Amino acid sequence: MKILVINCGSSSLKYQLIDMENESVMAKGLCERIGIEGSKLTHKANGKEMVVEQAMPAHTEAIKLVMQALVDPEYGVIKDTKEISAVGHRVLHGGKVYSDSIVVDEDVKRVIRECFDLGPLHNPANLMGIEACEAAMPGTPNVAVWDTGFGMKMPEKAYLYAIPYEYYDKYSIRRYGFHGTSHLFVSGEVLKFAELDPEKGKVIVCHLGNGASISASIGGKCVDTSMGLTPLEGLIMGTRSGDVDPAVVQFICNKEGKDVNEVLNILNKKSGILGMSDGISSDFRDVGKAAEEGNHHAQVALDAFIYRVAKYIGAYTAAMNGVDAIAFTAGVGENDIESRKKICEYLGYLGVEIDDEANNCRGKVQMISTPNSKVKVMVYPTNEELAIARETERLVK
Amino acid sequence: MKILVINCGSSSLKYQLIDMENESVMAKGLCERIGIEGSKLTHKANGKEMVVEQAMPAHTEAIKLVMQALVDPEYGVIKDTKEISAVGHRVLHGGKVYSDSIVVDEDVKRVIRECFDLGPLHNPANLMGIEACEAAMPGTPNVAVWDTGFGMKMPEKAYLYAIPYEYYDKYSIRRYGFHGTSHLFVSGEVLKFAELDPEKGKVIVCHLGNGASISASIGGKCVDTSMGLTPLEGLIMGTRSGDVDPAVVQFICNKEGKDVNEVLNILNKKSGILGMSDGISSDFRDVGKAAEEGNHHAQVALDAFIYRVAKYIGAYTAAMNGVDAIAFTAGVGENDIESRKKICEYLGYLGVEIDDEANNCRGKVQMISTPNSKVKVMVYPTNEELAIARETERLVK
Repeated sequence: MKILVINCGSSSLKYQLIDMENESVMAKGLCERIGIEGSKLTHKANGKEMVVEQAMPAHTEAIKLVMQALVDPEYGVIKDTKEISAVGHRVLHGGKVYSDSIVVDEDVKRVIRECFDLGPLHNPANLMGIEACEAAMPGTPNVAVWDTGFGMKMPEKAYLYAIPYEYYDKYSIRRYGFHGTSHLFVSGEVLKFAELDPEKGKVIVCHLGNGASISASIGGKCVDTSMGLTPLEGLIMGTRSGDVDPAVVQFICNKEGKDVNEVLNILNKKSGILGMSDGISSDFRDVGKAAEEGNHHAQVALDAFIYRVAKYIGAYTAAMNGVDAIAFTAGVGENDIESRKKICEYLGYLGVEIDDEANNCRGKVQMISTPNSKVKVMVYPTNEELAIARETERLVK
Repeated sequence: MKILVINCGSSSLKYQLIDMENESVMAKGLCERIGIEGSKLTHKANGKEMVVEQAMPAHTEAIKLVMQALVDPEYGVIKDTKEISAVGHRVLHGGKVYSDSIVVDEDVKRVIRECFDLGPLHNPANLMGIEACEAAMPGTPNVAVWDTGFGMKMPEKAYLYAIPYEYYDKYSIRRYGFHGTSHLFVSGEVLKFAELDPEKGKVIVCHLGNGASISASIGGKCVDTSMGLTPLEGLIMGTRSGDVDPAVVQFICNKEGKDVNEVLNILNKKSGILGMSDGISSDFRDVGKAAEEGNHHAQVALDAFIYRVAKYIGAYTAAMNGVDAIAFTAGVGENDIESRKKICEYLGYLGVEIDDEANNCRGKVQMISTPNSKVKVMVYPTNEELAIARETERLVK
């Protein structure tokens, strides 16, 4: 079975065609600047790359170009788009309604639309992507895989905020968690790789990238996760503050004469390690370099990032009354040897022991704890597209 | 040496006269409705109580009445106010300037005034109390003991928010922590009571009351504490939300058409277990009763409160790479047997073992873990007045 995986942004469309026989990527690519002058498709298959510069007024035109590329005599990988059994869409927000992936029908589209306020940047784009696929491939099923799906399985004590209950009822204000497909994928893989009890294995996944989140799960089912109503909550990220006293919002509003939307924009886009480092960069490598060169702000930003990850690991270990395995994934998690080492240095009390030689790796599946370590620690590259493809296959098979 | 301890609110003044020879309370009392019609002093000493209903237009008059009560032929405990060696004041906020207690001079008063924006409800009242004592007892030293003092010892990685650094520079936005005198007192006592290394003992203090906070300290020095820029951050409290995604503030503002100050007022005064329980009560006993009677909201509120305390204990254990002792204090911590038990049920992985019989206690110093427990867990009633008196004595001796 061949599954097309689509991830739409407001002006972009990323795709992968995956052959589920061997879970291999047949082709992948990106449409950029949809609806903006200078639209461009970059398509990669069979070790070759094709660039098509052509107007894409909307996602519908983008999808048509993707279809053409997939069946292109030279750069294509299939003969007919009918070979695509289903399309799996990353959809940001299913609100309080959906946690499990689902075949898209009118009800599903209605919910995606009703959740525009919860995912104002993503849900409209995700819906456009679905409608574009419906138009381009009539009869081919579309599946929605929710980025909030994993976090929707949290218990009430973890997902409810301690605010007036009516806000949950009226406005669906709760903790949702994001990066759901990544946490779903990695926690599931870790259960197998670390040979844990598939029902009872306690796993913490640290998805550390420019966006960063962490999850606790038992038997692959979410117990807690660090992002909340929005992706702002939790860890320190490239440009996002993560946790702050909510009074900080008020304080900055009043001191700077800004309204709440302006301040939230600062917390989302000018904070995190970019803000802490006094503007050096939102990229962990740049900030790391500055720290090496003796910049104090940069050093504190990295120390604080690492410290907060360690605290969340501690908190989630308490949430599950123990932990069997800890996995690092995403850009920083997969590649930042030093950060992994420093995070684990906080965890000696759990019996965590890191093998420095094993930890000297980037971007591949690897156990990095010693055989004596009481908790298995590993690097496990995430694969959100494959997670979406698997969910899609499961639903249409 | 006799020390008068003063804690001023905007319309109230609490006091204790403590004999430092044996750290006993000679007299204590409360002035209420200062500056409001119906002012009243309630004074207790020698097992007797005196009530004085008399106008107190300002704290100056209140202090004068306290002085009269202390030397009253029938209800007094001293012959002359000159017997008072010093006055120790609880002062909420010393900003970025002060962490250690200090004898008040003009510089100190200037800083208290400069921190009115950080402690808008308390600092003005605290300053009034100091000035009233200066007027009533010229020549008697006043000592400021900062509620933020304990938290000021946190390292940068713990106290800086991941927001643009300029906000720390310009507006002193950082994590301060509150309940400092309580954490100082209890963590110090626990080191002795649990016979820990006075320099290296790792202690977590859970100050659980209508306001609630938790601290981690090594050798009595703060490593981290849960309240932040304001007392709103951290645990779920009687009416305060504790941690929420900062985007929740924005979301409620926009949905309800409220400004940021109105929403922060809701997070401070209508949230916590009051909000989660859908308005039942801010008192843990009432909510506990409702939960027993089967109210689901009440049960979730308590579960979430307990869950968050457990997560903070887990986080702080990671922050210190281990923990030697955990202490429960303040109203809920000292008296709520069931909550203590449930919090500790999360901590089996640390080797925490609670002795149910020992835990069946209220309001007294008691070890509640078994002799085999790898972490010593105890109830230790807080005594903020004594902590202030000790600090004051230390500075004026």
